Amino acid sequence: MLSINQTKHIRSLQQKKFRTEFKQFVAEGNTLVCDLISSSYKVEMIIASNDWLESNSSLLNKSKATIISAKENELVRISTLKTPNQVIAVFNIPETRIDIESIKSELTIVLDDIKDPGNLGTIIRLADWFGIKNIVCSNETVDVYNSKVIQATMGSIARVNIFYTDLVEFLKSLPSNLKIYGTLLNGESVYSKTLDEKAIIVIGNESKGISESILPFINEKLLIPSYPIGTTNSKAESLNASIATAIICSEFRRKN
Amino acid sequence: MLSINQTKHIRSLQQKKFRTEFKQFVAEGNTLVCDLISSSYKVEMIIASNDWLESNSSLLNKSKATIISAKENELVRISTLKTPNQVIAVFNIPETRIDIESIKSELTIVLDDIKDPGNLGTIIRLADWFGIKNIVCSNETVDVYNSKVIQATMGSIARVNIFYTDLVEFLKSLPSNLKIYGTLLNGESVYSKTLDEKAIIVIGNESKGISESILPFINEKLLIPSYPIGTTNSKAESLNASIATAIICSEFRRKN
Repeated sequence: MLSINQTKHIRSLQQKKFRTEFKQFVAEGNTLVCDLISSSYKVEMIIASNDWLESNSSLLNKSKATIISAKENELVRISTLKTPNQVIAVFNIPETRIDIESIKSELTIVLDDIKDPGNLGTIIRLADWFGIKNIVCSNETVDVYNSKVIQATMGSIARVNIFYTDLVEFLKSLPSNLKIYGTLLNGESVYSKTLDEKAIIVIGNESKGISESILPFINEKLLIPSYPIGTTNSKAESLNASIATAIICSEFRRKN
Repeated sequence: MLSINQTKHIRSLQQKKFRTEFKQFVAEGNTLVCDLISSSYKVEMIIASNDWLESNSSLLNKSKATIISAKENELVRISTLKTPNQVIAVFNIPETRIDIESIKSELTIVLDDIKDPGNLGTIIRLADWFGIKNIVCSNETVDVYNSKVIQATMGSIARVNIFYTDLVEFLKSLPSNLKIYGTLLNGESVYSKTLDEKAIIVIGNESKGISESILPFINEKLLIPSYPIGTTNSKAESLNASIATAIICSEFRRKN
């Protein structure tokens, strides 16, 4: 049974200030919780139906978490979803530090103020698909431990490292020969341009694009051509941020 | 001023059964409403702030719609958004009929039970970007006139034709030499495969993929390779439906 204090604590983690205070976040659903338990994330508490606990006993044997058997109405009370899942778990937020050596030798996504939780979750999921291990976010990007982001990652949060930092300071710290790609209206077609496998891809905010302070760091300008080429009249003004990220990452992987 | 009956009527259009009964839907926000007014959609009613009405008087002069000046609290009452816009409008749902000749000579997206409103809206927006004029949806696909879909299209609903039909009957009616592409686990890489410019792209449901009844019609099987190629272990199981659609459409346009 879930105590009143436990219920209150878990519900408090829906707010960023309490996630920051307790260094904890909540994940819901079988795939997501199992992926996270099997990853380097440390699980603190597992609240689940009897059925779920029985069918996952081998996974739970390895864990030091507090395990609570809960009835459906208890799961409803702590869930952020309309239809709650069989399992909800509390994990620790790890302390992370950007490894510049790893950034220099791989493809990295940099997010310049992505605000929509669905977009961030989707970008983490597609980074996982395309084997991108690191995502560096501006401090103004939506919190990755927001429940909507966590759910939209579909478990990929367990396999992609997310960092929050001052982007100007971060980009200044990179070697000057590293290519930093950004999508801009005066860019070259992503289809024909040479794309370096060890590089940075900067994705701008959903409505404002790439910030003024970040623009000087972009040394390789890209464009996703609309179709038919050259016709911009009465057409879509832009692509959704996660869609643009997907097309660009797909092109990087196609060429390498 | 908005009457009680008008308020009730507009609010009723949040439900599909009333949209079907009245053959009307609601759109909110300056870009979306202006794009729709300038398109072939017929506007019935425009509810807006005095400021909006004044700055859009030339657009309104051409229209036969009922125009209502509304205060902020009136707009709040009929809005589905947390922060309501300066303008909300009611449009007629057009009667549409699939033009097989147009389908045979272009690239068409077929949606096999897309359930998430955000996905459908995003797919309409990217179809507009890639110059795809027709999207044929199964009857079980989420309603395009759902407010979340309309808002996610960012105005592209005004430029892309959406049809609902029985997909088996529709696919049966197509010429047998038309290529019907679908993403399947045993498909060929979308990067290396020849892609025909006049073709059908079938996108499956978010969790179930392409339906059993639709599979026999797929005569060209595609795969979006994950990276590094060949490693599927402890990786993202799939891509979001709209992300997969974007990558496939991008490849069709790159090659043609």
